[in-house]
Formats: sequence, structure tokens, C-alpha cells
Amino acid sequence: MAASRLQSVAHHFAATPPLPHPFDPLSNAEIERAAHIVRAEKGPVHYNAITLYEPRKREMMAWLETPEIVSRPKRIADVVVIAPGGKLYDGLVDLAERRVIKWETLDGVQPLLTMEDLQNVEEIVRKDPKVIEQCVLSGIPAEDMHKVYCDPWTIGYDHRFGSNVRLQQAMMHYRPHIDDSQYSFPLDFCPIFDAGKQKVIHIDIPDVRRPVNKAPPSNFHPVSIEKEGGYRKDLTPINITQPSGVSFKVEGRQIDWQNWKFHVGFNYKEGIVLNNITYNDKGNVRPIFYRLSLAEMVVPYGNPEHPHQRKHAFDVGEYGAGYMTNSLTLGCDCKGAIHYMDAAFVNRAGESTTIKNAVCIHEEDAGILFKHTDFRDDSVIVTRGRKLIISHIFTVGNYDYCVYWMFHQDGTIQLDIKLTGIMNTYPMNPGEDTKGWGTEVYPGVNAHNHQHLFCLRIDPNIDGPNNTVFQSDATPSASEVGSAENPYGNAFYAKKTEYTTVQESISDYNGATSRTWDMTNPNKLNPHSHKPVAYKLVSREVPKLLPREGSLVWKRAGFARHAVHVTPYSDDQLHPAGRHVPQTSGEPSVGLPEWIADGQASIRNTDVVLWHTFGLTHFPSPEDFPIMPAEPMTVLLRPRNFFSRNPALDVPPSYCSTPSSVAASKDEVERSVLNLTDGESRLVDVKKCCN
Amino acid sequence: MAASRLQSVAHHFAATPPLPHPFDPLSNAEIERAAHIVRAEKGPVHYNAITLYEPRKREMMAWLETPEIVSRPKRIADVVVIAPGGKLYDGLVDLAERRVIKWETLDGVQPLLTMEDLQNVEEIVRKDPKVIEQCVLSGIPAEDMHKVYCDPWTIGYDHRFGSNVRLQQAMMHYRPHIDDSQYSFPLDFCPIFDAGKQKVIHIDIPDVRRPVNKAPPSNFHPVSIEKEGGYRKDLTPINITQPSGVSFKVEGRQIDWQNWKFHVGFNYKEGIVLNNITYNDKGNVRPIFYRLSLAEMVVPYGNPEHPHQRKHAFDVGEYGAGYMTNSLTLGCDCKGAIHYMDAAFVNRAGESTTIKNAVCIHEEDAGILFKHTDFRDDSVIVTRGRKLIISHIFTVGNYDYCVYWMFHQDGTIQLDIKLTGIMNTYPMNPGEDTKGWGTEVYPGVNAHNHQHLFCLRIDPNIDGPNNTVFQSDATPSASEVGSAENPYGNAFYAKKTEYTTVQESISDYNGATSRTWDMTNPNKLNPHSHKPVAYKLVSREVPKLLPREGSLVWKRAGFARHAVHVTPYSDDQLHPAGRHVPQTSGEPSVGLPEWIADGQASIRNTDVVLWHTFGLTHFPSPEDFPIMPAEPMTVLLRPRNFFSRNPALDVPPSYCSTPSSVAASKDEVERSVLNLTDGESRLVDVKKCCN
Repeated sequence: MAASRLQSVAHHFAATPPLPHPFDPLSNAEIERAAHIVRAEKGPVHYNAITLYEPRKREMMAWLETPEIVSRPKRIADVVVIAPGGKLYDGLVDLAERRVIKWETLDGVQPLLTMEDLQNVEEIVRKDPKVIEQCVLSGIPAEDMHKVYCDPWTIGYDHRFGSNVRLQQAMMHYRPHIDDSQYSFPLDFCPIFDAGKQKVIHIDIPDVRRPVNKAPPSNFHPVSIEKEGGYRKDLTPINITQPSGVSFKVEGRQIDWQNWKFHVGFNYKEGIVLNNITYNDKGNVRPIFYRLSLAEMVVPYGNPEHPHQRKHAFDVGEYGAGYMTNSLTLGCDCKGAIHYMDAAFVNRAGESTTIKNAVCIHEEDAGILFKHTDFRDDSVIVTRGRKLIISHIFTVGNYDYCVYWMFHQDGTIQLDIKLTGIMNTYPMNPGEDTKGWGTEVYPGVNAHNHQHLFCLRIDPNIDGPNNTVFQSDATPSASEVGSAENPYGNAFYAKKTEYTTVQESISDYNGATSRTWDMTNPNKLNPHSHKPVAYKLVSREVPKLLPREGSLVWKRAGFARHAVHVTPYSDDQLHPAGRHVPQTSGEPSVGLPEWIADGQASIRNTDVVLWHTFGLTHFPSPEDFPIMPAEPMTVLLRPRNFFSRNPALDVPPSYCSTPSSVAASKDEVERSVLNLTDGESRLVDVKKCCN
Repeated sequence: MAASRLQSVAHHFAATPPLPHPFDPLSNAEIERAAHIVRAEKGPVHYNAITLYEPRKREMMAWLETPEIVSRPKRIADVVVIAPGGKLYDGLVDLAERRVIKWETLDGVQPLLTMEDLQNVEEIVRKDPKVIEQCVLSGIPAEDMHKVYCDPWTIGYDHRFGSNVRLQQAMMHYRPHIDDSQYSFPLDFCPIFDAGKQKVIHIDIPDVRRPVNKAPPSNFHPVSIEKEGGYRKDLTPINITQPSGVSFKVEGRQIDWQNWKFHVGFNYKEGIVLNNITYNDKGNVRPIFYRLSLAEMVVPYGNPEHPHQRKHAFDVGEYGAGYMTNSLTLGCDCKGAIHYMDAAFVNRAGESTTIKNAVCIHEEDAGILFKHTDFRDDSVIVTRGRKLIISHIFTVGNYDYCVYWMFHQDGTIQLDIKLTGIMNTYPMNPGEDTKGWGTEVYPGVNAHNHQHLFCLRIDPNIDGPNNTVFQSDATPSASEVGSAENPYGNAFYAKKTEYTTVQESISDYNGATSRTWDMTNPNKLNPHSHKPVAYKLVSREVPKLLPREGSLVWKRAGFARHAVHVTPYSDDQLHPAGRHVPQTSGEPSVGLPEWIADGQASIRNTDVVLWHTFGLTHFPSPEDFPIMPAEPMTVLLRPRNFFSRNPALDVPPSYCSTPSSVAASKDEVERSVLNLTDGESRLVDVKKCCN
């Protein structure tokens, strides 16, 4: 019996989960504990969100520095609830002390929409007599209301209703058959749904009516493709395998790969958060970024007619890139050798929920990393690259966003976003003029011009927290051709503009100068170039916010007014359009515009955050319909003067010969070359392959 | 015996090669025949180039239309020779009639440098007493001249020597050991080599002398990496296989893949040429581009000191992206299932030469092509994409360029260029100031600022040859917020500017408006959008030419003055910096600036060519040394209003469920989903993988 007890104790020890890393998202157990503590203290509420209250940076940096000495930052839950009667609260819960340590009423804002908020609107809208009336007017018989669908959006902001009533606008559609894409059958009216009353309180009806589309469905599901001739049969499989396993290590949520080390967090708003990104530079672990995330985005639509001005979804702040995240499928979303991480959230009732396979982690071959051939003797080095990709995909109503954070062996971090899914559509009458505000992508279907503007929050930690940002512009010499300084006229340089105050940092993209931004540590110079160590932001898809100054979007999406803003670091400045985005009026603009204040704060040689707005402007075309081929975008963070040389020189080359080995071979002496060429690649017999 | 003779005849028939496609490069046999015909008629010459004289477009279009009726365009060789005494000739040889049909003396220009031209300079330079003297002054003992190397460049243009003597400038370097990278040991003087006299005729010596670098070598070969701790050992293999073969068909040099069909040509100047690109749109074979190529490039350096103004290599027109092409290696340059094409050239003696595996053709997985999830029921479609890549890699002295022409299933053509290799370097004295014109990338090594500007020649054939180009700028409504036209201020549109004359088409990039250019067929409207069918040029790396107006580069590289020029089609306008580029003075500017003439030619609804200059400005940093991690660039040609819907809908999805199948599953009825997920992908055991 003694032995048996010992075993039991041993088992108990083994089963104790390790302490969470302070950056770890709340576990399911922690979420439920937080919900329980809130309920016990505050009574029954609806939970909007329970997420990690991230450790304060100062405390966290100290712990990261010497975890054996400094006490581990506490686990605190950040809670948003809707109490009976629609009262809103922001709270903090100390999970160790099991008590609510902050509880504040929210006024004039609304927390984001959860999946549950979205899910129950459609049934109520379908039963609303006034909606039924409008459907009948649109040409849909009352008995077909089960064929009417709505994509509920936050209302954004509508001055008629203000911010105190929690509202959704219902983007209405029709499906002749349950499997038909509803986006070929948009309806022209827009019910306003009150989440508190759980009913439709108003319907926006346009002056010009547009009955439901009479065109045949435009679909992408198998039955429709089969009807049109079936799937193409000439694609042979491509298999990607890693028989010896992957090259990355995972410890909890920390990833270690090719000298990179970082923590993969995840929250309901931003989705993936990368923390404490470091690079092991020959034994010297150098911090680069304290935190990277897609902090916000906005999708303004360009049709001036009422109520389309309300269409400017903040897909992060109003819905949550985390909440809307897809559960990924092996061999489908993700190909090769895959490691997944799950995501834990709370539901309205306070139970924890799990999205399985929310984050995909895998490696990919990255083509040639570097190559050089000496023309004299054909001595050559070819080294293939590898990248590590941390990705998630989220769906917000009609659109789907694939987010790929990539780490490269040359020290580059690359953020790729692929836009796919289905465009928001609006009906048009036969012969109607889009007036240039949209495109008829299918008969009777108007897809409005829109932008996807993302806000990348970069918290640099370039060899330490004290950083300065410079703007860099490729600039011809100011001296005339023939002058002493520029006799031949060919002189040019990188003009560096130091940002010393917030105001100076507010800047736009300049394609003509190939503008980039350097995040530098002015206290540390590169030993060779004597320039400050830096990471450079390279971003080429940087459209202006096209809605005009003073427009509703301009007021609400202050972050999108410029490509770059730099602010002094503050723990509480995470969400550049505000902590709670739905129904903000933009008067005053919250988030980044508030933090900028008078712009006089110093951002020189101090802990700063760089907010970068990038994205694209989408003028739809029929190719984007009925489902849009993924359109990719790229942002790069590249080491410049950070390393003292190419940091990937020790990646084993596929093939390498040297002048001496080539010469030896010519003399028929044994050839000493490094040949690690991939043994699995094959020449194809193109005669055989033709089917 | 009768049977035996018959067999022999049959064998003879089988062995007869099929007639070459009119776009096919000259075969080895054709090259030798052309050389023989020239020699027979004109006597002994040195051959600079023998390449396909491309069929005249009118004739070729007629043949492509009805090959069974129209006679096949003739095989004609385009020949450049250097006759005894240095006289230069351009000739044409009719290969069927076996005679020279054109023979013209060249004056005031020089044909490009061949590999043979480059190869013999070094030995001569090493023996030149004045060069030896300079080496000794630089700190290299005379007995170490075998350790002195030079990269011969064309002289570009130097007014002191003009254009009639064929010259090279020798970029001098030193190697302490044969395997050391010479670019850490640049020398400060520059011999001028006369190719006719085969000797050094002058040495440019700077006022400020900079002796050879005393720093230890900075290398990337295995011995040096082993000395510094060896190669990293934590990379596991990634295998990419196509066990059922590839999805493309090859017929001669015509490729058929996923509705795309095109011809892969190759010449000594441009390397890959893609001709007659069509797309099979549900049985309707639609022409898109008649010809695509990288027609020219220039690499201006930004250091104003003499003689660096001469450093602005035209790596296509002065050396030849074809001539300098690498022979590619399976599993090394190219991974997966590969089809190669060889390249045939002529050598100085008139013999044909072959670069094996000059062109690589292979497929790659392209990630998610499109995806959408319905938030109501998680019904979903995920379709993975595939791309076909036609690539070659060429090395011009220190730099290496990887060129990838990619075809996508959504109708997009993507040109990616990766820059790698080694930067041109110049010595600097301890404590010397680079003055911002370069960066000290390693002690004593100054890498000068430079640009890589490529000229993409696009010969559109958008549903036929009569095309019009429009400029497209994302533009806010001109109406004020609150106006009747723009009550909420959110209105924006794509402002289209029609180019009716050459002058109107001369345009720069505008990052603020996300400027693109539409190549349209105004005679054919999209059935849904009623907009002209079009392909859009999307290019975001479009720096200005930084050398000032009136500089030598500006004069010689006229094509690079603007991002876009559109000209009426002309058979003889292929090379935008001139047919023969070395030693052009730029007075007057040849090539594109000539063709533009007064700019009044109509380019509206006619056969046009769009010249697009793109590239990047490189401000070196130590990370780029001693060999540069590949820096990629992308240009896209995207269908807009060309197809009536997403043309990739019939690509088999990896996974697809519909609302009805999801509902059926809920009712525990048999679930009918399409599940083609890749069976080879695996979850990794990250505990096991950690080594």
C-alpha cells in the first residue's frame, strides 16, 4: 500500500501542468476560473471576453532578464461582460488571489460582436413582420423567409442611434437553394437590430428600390461545378514531407528555430501575437521585437449612398481576428509537417470553448537563399533557404483573411496576408450605372470599391528597448550635374530623417523615394558600418485612406490616416481604434489619435511603438466572383546594420565548389566539393507525363 | 535486305527532327550552319552572336492563326561578328536559302561582351607592367600577381576613348588565397583594356590612394565556415515529390498547363522569352501576350567620384542574361520534379556551344487559392493553388540574378526576380568617410549605393493585337464631405486615364494612388462589368532613376527615366537601350528615347508595346556581405474584366462541404462532402523533433 501511495503521488506530480509562461493565453481552466470569480462577486452576467491581461512590460522585461530572481508576473484575466439590463463592464481578475481587482462601467461604447452575437440575429430578422414586408416587396414570397439570410455587422456608427444601444446592421441576402451563394442575391434594405431587445428596431430603405436578382445563381460548390463540366482532371499531386521531422522545437508556446526564439500568443482580438522575438547571434541572444501583432484593420467601402457609409468594418476591433479564427485542417489549409496550437475562449455563459488547430506552425522550402558563380571557373555556392510560418485564418462575414508570419534565415521577418472569401455585394437594377463606385461583377450584382487597411503594431526591442525611428528616402544628390560634388550627376544616397517627437513621426508612404523606416538602437553601432543597429520596415502596399478628412471612417479609424505613427510605449496602448470599437462615433477619435495628443512627446532613444497602416484598395472585377482568388500582400522587417555579416552563412549549402577544388578536379586530383543536393528531386519525363 | 533497308528508312524518318517552331531558338545545327554560311561568304570572322531573327509579327500572327494555310515563317539567323581589324558587322542569314541576306557595318557602337571576351582579360592584365606597378603600390608584391584578379566590365562610356575602340574596364581585386572572396580586397585603380590590341591602354588612378585591405578574409566557402564553428546541424530535409508526374505537357518548347499555353524561347541577350501566351477559357483559346521578356536592365552606382560614374552595367544589353546563364542543378537550384531546357549559342570560332539545363520548368504548391467559411454552419471550401515556374539564373560578374516567370491558376502571371551574389566593392582607408555614398560593410570595404532597374517589355495581345493602355489611380471623390455627391465623405473610385499618344503614356509610379496600368482591348467588353477586357500591371517596387537628368546614366538608359512608356509595335524595337549597348554615349540616347520621337504617335486601339521599368535601390549593409541573401521583387500581370468569373473555380478543392451536407450530417444522414485533402501531410511530434 505504501508503494501504491507513492505511485499515486508520483502520478500526481507528473500530471501537474507546468506553470504557464506569462505570455501564454489564458488556459481553458483559467478562463473558467475567471468567469467563476466574476460570477461569484458580481452576479450573473453575459461574458463578452475573457483574455490574458498581458504582464506590464517593465515587470515582464525584468522577469525575462533574470527569471530565477525576479518574481513571475501574475496571471490576470481581462474581462468584458454585459450585465442584465445591458450594462457593460471592463474588469480585471487576479487569478491567484481569486478576486476582481478592477471593475469599471463602460459608457458610450460597445464591446465587439461575438460569434454568438452574430448567430442569433438571422432567425429573429426572418420573423420580423416589417422585414418580411420588405422581402415581399423585393420579390421574395413570405413563405420563403427561410431562404432569407443575413450577415450581421456592427452598425459601425449611426448618429441616429448613438452608442448606448448595442446594435447590428443586417446585410440581407437570399438563397434560392440552401447551397446557393447568397452574395449573388443581395437585398437592398438594411434592418437595424437591437441586441438588448433582441429585435429589429428600424429598417433603412433606399429611395430607389432594387428587387431581388433574377439571374441564375453563381456558385462554387461541387454540384454547380459538376454541372458546368466538372473539375479539371490534369493536376497531379505534389507531396511535401519531412521524414526526419521538423527543424523547430516547441516548448509550451515558445518556438526555437534557426537561431530565432519567440513566444506565440493568441487573443480574441488580434489572433496571433508574437512576443519576445530574439535571435541567437553566435551565442549572443539579441532581442529584436518585444511584441508584434495585427492590432486593427478597417475596410471602408466607397459608395457614397446611404447607408453604405456605415460599411467600414473593423474586422479586428469589431469582431476579433481571434474569435473568428478557423479551425485548420491538415493537408488542406496546411501542407507538410504541421504543429498546431489551439485557442481557448469564453462563451456568453462563462464556459470555456476551444478552437482546435487555430494556429498552424510549419516549415517551407524558401528557394535559393544565396548563390554565386565565379565566371572564371564555374566554382559556385548554392544555398537553399527555409522559412518558418506561423499562421491563422479568420473569417469575418463574407471575407476570409489568411495571416502568415514568416521567419527567414537571413534575419527577415515577413508578414503575408492573403485576402480571399467573398466580396460584400449590393443589388443593382438592369442598366443601372455604378457611377464608378463599384463594378457589376455578375448581372444584378454590384461589388463596391473598398480598401483593406491593416494596422501592424510593432514594438521594437532592437538590442534593447531604447530605440529611435528614422525615415529613409532614396534621394539624388542635391548638387547639379557638373558640380564639384556631383561631376557626373550619378550621386545618390539614403536621406535619413530622425523622428524625435510623435508629431515628426506621422508620415505617409512615398513610392518615388522607395521610403522605408528604420527602427534603430542609437546606443549600439554596427562594428563595420558604424551605423546604428536597425530593423527596417519595408512595405510597398501602402494606399492612402481614401475616404476624405472629416468622413465617418476618417474619424473612427484614426490610425489609418497615415502610414506610420510612432508613440512612446505605454502598457495600455494596444488597440489603435480604441479598446472597444463598435459604435465609437469618432468624436473625439479614440485610440491612436488620443495617444498622439499634442505630438510633442519625445520618441528619441526611448521605448517606442511603431504603428504601420498598410493594405490595398480593391476595385472589384468579375474575376473576384463568386469567390475571390487570394490576393497576397507582404510587409518585411529586415535587419540592416544589425548583424556584422550575412547571418545565414552557416546554412549548409546544397552545393559548393571552390576555385581550388575546381582546379584540383581539372588536374584529375580528387575533387573536394560539398554536395548536399536534395536526393529526392527528379527529372520528369515530359513525354510520359502528357495525359 | 529489303526489310533491312526499310528499317533503315523508317529509322531515318524517326530520326528526322520535327520542323522547329518559328519561335524556337536556333538549334546547334542551325547556329553552325549560319556560321558556315557567313564564313563562306565573308571570310574568317570572330562571332559575337548568332541568334534567332524572330519572325515578323504580321507574318507570324497569320501563321499562328492558320498554320495549315499560311506558309511557315522562315528560319533566319541574326548574326553579329567582329571581322579582322576590329570591323563590326550586323548580318542576317537565310538558313534555308543558305545565304547572307543583310550585311551592315556597325559604327560608333560595340556589341556586347561574351564570356570569352571576359575570360582573357585577367591574364593579360596580370602581366602588364604598369598594372604590376600599381599592385605593388597597393601593397601586393610583384611575385603575387597570380593572386590578382579582375572582373572585366564594359567601359560603359568614357568620352576620352569614345566608341570606336572596343574597351573593357577591369575591376581589380586581390585574393590572399585562391579560395578567398576577392570582394573583401578590392583595389583602387582601374585598368582600361583594349580588346582589339589585347592590352591595357590606360589606368585610372584616383587622387587619394587606398592600399589593399589588411583585414582578414571574409569568406563563405566550407573551410571558412568550418573554422568558424561549422554548419548548423538542426535542419531536417524537406522533400517535394510528384510521384504521378507533373501536370504540364511539353511539346518542343511549347508548354501546356492549367489552360495556359505558351512558347518558351531563349536568346543570348534577354534569356527567357515567352511568346504567344494564351488561355483556354472554356474552349475559347484567348490570346493574352504576344511576347514577354526582361529586355534590359541597368545598375547605376551612386558614388560621384571618378571613375565610378562608369559603373552602371547594363547586365542584359552589355553582357547578355542568356550568355551569362547558369547551368542548373537538380535538387539544388531546382527542387521537386523538374524539366530542363538547354540553350545553344555560338562561340568566337563559330562553333555551337550548349548550356545544359539553362531553363528550369517545374510546378509548386501555391498555398491557398481561395477559401470561404460560412459562419452559420462552418460549411467551407478550401482550394489550394498551384503555380508553374519557368526560371533561369544568370551571373554577371559579381551579381547573380534569379528570374522566375510564374503562371497561376487564377490567370495571373507573376515575374519574380531574386538578387543575390556579391556586391561590387571599393577599398576605403581606415577612418575614411563614405559621405553617405556607400557603406563600410566590412573593415576597409566600401559597397556603393546602387540601383537595379529592370525593363520589362510587355507586348500585349489582349484578345487580339488592338489594345489601349489606361493609367489607374485610386482617387477620393472630388466632392466635399457633406455635399450631395459625397454626403458622408467615403466615396472613392479608380480614376482611369486613357493613353492616346506615346507622350501621354510616359508616366511614373505613384505610391499614394496605388497606381496600376490596364492593358485593355477596347473592342471587347466584359459581359458583366461592361468594362474592356484587360490585364493590369501591378508593380510596387518602382524607384525613380536616381542619377540626375543629364547624367551619363540618364542619357544612356533612357528607358529608366520613367516607369512606363507605351509605343506602337515595331518588329525592330526589342532593345530599349539600343541593339548594341556597350560604349553608347547617350548622345543622342538610343533605343526607347529614339522610338518615342515627338511622342505624337497614336497608341490608341492599336498594336502597342508597354515598357515597364521597375527594380530597387540598394543601400548596402553588412548583412549583404560577403554574399548577399537573395532579395526578391515581384511584378504581377493580373486579369481584370478579362474573365467573366474566377477562372479557377474548377480546380478541385482540398475540402468542400455545403450547408445542405452539414445539415444532413447534423441529422446523422450520410454526409456528402468533397474531401481531397492531401494524404501525405502529417502532424509532427514536437517532443520527438527536439534534438
